[in-house]
Amino acid sequence: MTGATQTFALADAAELAVVERSGFIESRHGGSAIVLDPDGAVVRSLGNPDAPVFPRSSLKPFQAVATLVSGAALSGASMALATASHAGTPEHVALVRSMLASVNLTEGALHCPAQWPLDTAARDELVRSGVGASAITMNCSGKHAAMLMACVHSGWPTDTYLDPQHPLQLQIRDVVERLTGEKIQATGVDGCGAPIHAITLAGLARGIHRIATASESSPFALYRTAATLRRAVLDNGWAIDGPGRANTVVIDELGVFAKGGAEGVMVMAAPDGTTVALKMLDGAARAASIVGLALLAQAGAIDASAPERLGDRLGREVLGGGQPVGKITTTF
Amino acid sequence: MTGATQTFALADAAELAVVERSGFIESRHGGSAIVLDPDGAVVRSLGNPDAPVFPRSSLKPFQAVATLVSGAALSGASMALATASHAGTPEHVALVRSMLASVNLTEGALHCPAQWPLDTAARDELVRSGVGASAITMNCSGKHAAMLMACVHSGWPTDTYLDPQHPLQLQIRDVVERLTGEKIQATGVDGCGAPIHAITLAGLARGIHRIATASESSPFALYRTAATLRRAVLDNGWAIDGPGRANTVVIDELGVFAKGGAEGVMVMAAPDGTTVALKMLDGAARAASIVGLALLAQAGAIDASAPERLGDRLGREVLGGGQPVGKITTTF
Repeated sequence: MTGATQTFALADAAELAVVERSGFIESRHGGSAIVLDPDGAVVRSLGNPDAPVFPRSSLKPFQAVATLVSGAALSGASMALATASHAGTPEHVALVRSMLASVNLTEGALHCPAQWPLDTAARDELVRSGVGASAITMNCSGKHAAMLMACVHSGWPTDTYLDPQHPLQLQIRDVVERLTGEKIQATGVDGCGAPIHAITLAGLARGIHRIATASESSPFALYRTAATLRRAVLDNGWAIDGPGRANTVVIDELGVFAKGGAEGVMVMAAPDGTTVALKMLDGAARAASIVGLALLAQAGAIDASAPERLGDRLGREVLGGGQPVGKITTTF
Repeated sequence: MTGATQTFALADAAELAVVERSGFIESRHGGSAIVLDPDGAVVRSLGNPDAPVFPRSSLKPFQAVATLVSGAALSGASMALATASHAGTPEHVALVRSMLASVNLTEGALHCPAQWPLDTAARDELVRSGVGASAITMNCSGKHAAMLMACVHSGWPTDTYLDPQHPLQLQIRDVVERLTGEKIQATGVDGCGAPIHAITLAGLARGIHRIATASESSPFALYRTAATLRRAVLDNGWAIDGPGRANTVVIDELGVFAKGGAEGVMVMAAPDGTTVALKMLDGAARAASIVGLALLAQAGAIDASAPERLGDRLGREVLGGGQPVGKITTTF
């Protein structure tokens, strides 16, 4: 580790989106973004995508590949759930529970903090039933279950699996560095308690591009695994996020691989392999999907009308008195 | 109106706070801020406080003064509620209901959109009881009730009271312009449906300073009213926000007049009259109280240890695995 201590500066941030209310731009979002073409060449750079970022949950595709490489027996929706920030619906929770049961573990082994479901209806049902927040309804519980499955398969201890020096976490480091093609610059503790690694947006995009373009008949096991994960995500958009939620909408409507992360991180890869990685410097998620889709559309990778068509479902609307009075728009 | 169409540019924003996780700065908040000394002179300027902003709920003190000037019979907690973004607890709701009842109106007259209480316990109780979100639990309902009381007192229609040309709204414009000492630059629709007026942070600070330093024995009715409002807010910190919430903590612990607004706006005035107005350009609220207190402390208006002492209660902590692993800190 080189011990990077910070992401890009405010002065390096490019304006990516603005918030307009009644014709007045009242807020602005700055950040950095990078676009790779289907061959993986950099075709667009905004802000400073060479600075390190904590990808947060946008690192999950790499963590999922590492759990698969380490023997987690996952397929279809459970494989997608390994890379999910799921909404905690009963369907998500049942699947996480079955993943744990497959290796004779229960949710007490997860070690992620208790959190209410992100899905409002699911949350309210838990309130009504008096069950409360728990680790299994936390959005990262599928990732944690997959990590535990890998540990059991590999004969590694399950109680220390979130330790950065645990064999699984070292495997994840290796996968991150191999797929992104760069060295991890810093390691911290993610919201769920798992190690989080700082890499550049350029490296993050490179790694996602490799997952998005990997062949299921590659001579390399790592790439075959990555291709399988991509297929599982695209086939199970509901599992990676939740009904009506941004990543699920983008996956289901456009066949675009999409994974957001906390603090305004987003990665997207179009069917042709065009890949975007971005970070809103302020950490806000509200414009991240809109910015990602606009970058893909401007690169010609998705239909030019898609950002406009899906915008309202991605949280673009600004309300006044309960009615639309403005919107979030991209400015590049 | 000059028809201003936007707030300050990203390039004009000063870095006000950063978000640190495990020793790595992963996000940054830029914005503008201004500090006035007890005499109202500008002693500090960060970013571009001469650009217009929508103050959002930080405009409520002026709206409250206007309702009082227009005859709303308010005192103590109900007066504080007229300038509140309240948390929707049963205590807040009961008081709003009594305000409406005092002029023979019910919550159907409020015309603000239905919203769940901001207070989690209050929200969950409504979920359990099956009542759901309503206009009276919306954070602005106290302001709306006060506006309706003013209309009834003045013989103005209550069904059109949110129209920008309604006599009450014209009265509000006049109070805003008189107290801020500047012309409104644009008018839009606020989240609650009421008109919202764009003014500069400098003007906003000037107006709040006048409210914070007004004398209850002023020869001018406007200033006597402003002084009464200030006293009501400082004496009823729970009413303006809610238990454990930022404005209430700042008011109750420090005797600082504090009122946040959506999209990252904050105004604070210390007991000596030192006044801060700020806007986070990205619209995020999470650093606004911390930044405001730091500005007051650096100006010598509050105890230098107050920001550190109250920081955790103002949302400074960054969690990893449910434990503190970093924090939000100011950078000026």
